[in-house]
Amino acid sequence: MIYLDHNATTPVLPEVREAMLSYLGDEWGNPSSSYRFGSHLKSKIEEAREQVADLIGAKSPQEVLFTSGGTESNNTALHAVIHSTGKTHIVTSQVEHSSVLSYCRFLQEFRGYEVTYLPVDREGLISMADLEAAIKPGTALVSLMWANNETGVLFPVEEIGQICRSKGVPYHCDAVQAVGKLPMKLKDLPIDYLSLTGHKIGAPKGIGALYVQKKAPFVPFVLGGHQERSRRGGTENVPSIVGLGMAAAIAKKKLPAYDASVRPLRDALEEGILGSIPNAERNGHPTHRLSNTANVFLPGMDSDAVLTFLDSHNICASSGSACMESAITPSHVIKAMSGSHDRSSESIRFSLGASNTLEEVQSVLQKLEQLGDLVS
Amino acid sequence: MIYLDHNATTPVLPEVREAMLSYLGDEWGNPSSSYRFGSHLKSKIEEAREQVADLIGAKSPQEVLFTSGGTESNNTALHAVIHSTGKTHIVTSQVEHSSVLSYCRFLQEFRGYEVTYLPVDREGLISMADLEAAIKPGTALVSLMWANNETGVLFPVEEIGQICRSKGVPYHCDAVQAVGKLPMKLKDLPIDYLSLTGHKIGAPKGIGALYVQKKAPFVPFVLGGHQERSRRGGTENVPSIVGLGMAAAIAKKKLPAYDASVRPLRDALEEGILGSIPNAERNGHPTHRLSNTANVFLPGMDSDAVLTFLDSHNICASSGSACMESAITPSHVIKAMSGSHDRSSESIRFSLGASNTLEEVQSVLQKLEQLGDLVS
Repeated sequence: MIYLDHNATTPVLPEVREAMLSYLGDEWGNPSSSYRFGSHLKSKIEEAREQVADLIGAKSPQEVLFTSGGTESNNTALHAVIHSTGKTHIVTSQVEHSSVLSYCRFLQEFRGYEVTYLPVDREGLISMADLEAAIKPGTALVSLMWANNETGVLFPVEEIGQICRSKGVPYHCDAVQAVGKLPMKLKDLPIDYLSLTGHKIGAPKGIGALYVQKKAPFVPFVLGGHQERSRRGGTENVPSIVGLGMAAAIAKKKLPAYDASVRPLRDALEEGILGSIPNAERNGHPTHRLSNTANVFLPGMDSDAVLTFLDSHNICASSGSACMESAITPSHVIKAMSGSHDRSSESIRFSLGASNTLEEVQSVLQKLEQLGDLVS
Repeated sequence: MIYLDHNATTPVLPEVREAMLSYLGDEWGNPSSSYRFGSHLKSKIEEAREQVADLIGAKSPQEVLFTSGGTESNNTALHAVIHSTGKTHIVTSQVEHSSVLSYCRFLQEFRGYEVTYLPVDREGLISMADLEAAIKPGTALVSLMWANNETGVLFPVEEIGQICRSKGVPYHCDAVQAVGKLPMKLKDLPIDYLSLTGHKIGAPKGIGALYVQKKAPFVPFVLGGHQERSRRGGTENVPSIVGLGMAAAIAKKKLPAYDASVRPLRDALEEGILGSIPNAERNGHPTHRLSNTANVFLPGMDSDAVLTFLDSHNICASSGSACMESAITPSHVIKAMSGSHDRSSESIRFSLGASNTLEEVQSVLQKLEQLGDLVS
């Protein structure tokens, strides 16, 4: 199998699995219990919290809150802010992840909120002037992602954050696709909330985290007991928290080499496709993007057909977000960039990982050339 | 170690761990992907859904929704109902789990909801007349648990459901402590929503489910992609879902023998305590309760001191819900039953599992007698 869908999910790292096993085995206590068999697990949770804080360069581990994944993290950030203020306007973009967009639509439908969905240009970028103009006295929150999951396009988060700070509006950044792929030093960034998830960096599904800057207002989303310093109810998911911590530590260690390991492969793949498939075009800004993601428009080639063909050769790629896969609608991201329904249903995302090889890329290019022959 | 805190959490069963391992290993695909490596995992999720549906006697597996645990399940049920109606009154009880109570308090504080917290009598039961009187035309939901986590006291869920049906009000039942301990046939019960969690029945922490009766209204709580038939966003937690399914299948198989395996031990423990510790009393109804739970009032003995003493002998017990453990306040359940602050801070919960033995119980009784000597 050639796996080129690392933005959808990643393999659980052997070290992560190993670290989790004892918490699925002998160490099954409840960390909120008073006896040592349970309570000693608290230190394991705090160790994982430090590892995650370290990966994102947070000022303090206390700024890291464990959740059940990126979707809950995004929901939590929006929930936390809107319940901390009487303001009822949100600024986001047309290309955010479904967990931000769905929550915004929920607020519009059920709470009468107003939401500004900033448009993007053909290369997938928003305009800072648009952002400035969109923020008004009634704006409760700006939620703009770091790296787009479908195209890898990077928003200028520091600039966004500075604009938000200058207007006194909290800034939430969905960094699910950026964490582990880019160095981050949140202590120096004007970001108030930042979402990440485990299964994009070698931890299992079902665990994520939300960074909440020390002074940022907070109202819990998942409401229950006093876990997570009363910020997220529910018995702590010890094995997965330990796994996320281990994955974060490994990601931090591998980060300096990440770009050099995936960029040449991604570029070879992309150049190969653009050079061999008639009229193929890149989706997304040529440089302001993740080094692992190639999203290409293959005119006249229905993406479902291409993916089925690739799958028949054991090549895994996607037409967009797995979170939207079962939807009949084509990619909302490519649609927002191009204004074209056709382009959004004739585009393919390849997202690489450090374990991919040049041989794999060459093999995929060979198959895609066959596809070109079949179509033309 | 003698573990008598099964209502807080249970060991991950070896078969459950075994079933999960391949999904933490080679089978790490994203089930929402279009290629087979991911999409074939959907059938594993559906198999687990059938296993959970089977354990609770649901009419259809489609009525089972996977969540991140009991707290999210309880939050989801309340959220689902209140957003499906314009009504703003909720009926619950003073002895519910913190995940129901916290959500209700949130609705009061942030949304102006009215909540009726039904009182309980000295034995921990609510009055059906009180329930009938509390329901009014503006009542959106009744949320009343099946088995109390601290005392094991059972509410008459069928009768409660019938009253709700007769008044046309949806009924949510927190059955986190009842599932796997009592036979259930939801297809024959007037229950619209029912919460359960994995880690009380031998699955890991971080996975749960919500039963949503076919005709019950629903608005998603965790908002994102199209997972779980658009009822719960977020990449499916495949390993834990598979684990919950396996735990449910095992619980179903063991259920007929459960009562006979724990009740004699619990009774021996309780009778031993009541017979040896001066003025000790049972908390909770003598018969309307789970067969594994003994909650005892030990007058003059601070529960923290007792637990520390027991812990020093490697005996795990608790003073109430682990979800409230880090709170300074004593048990809200015992307080609601007795009206006494002292009683609520001088009570201990022992909750047994099928793996406990009579030798363990005798050993605990011996230690407790020492404690009696120390105090008196």
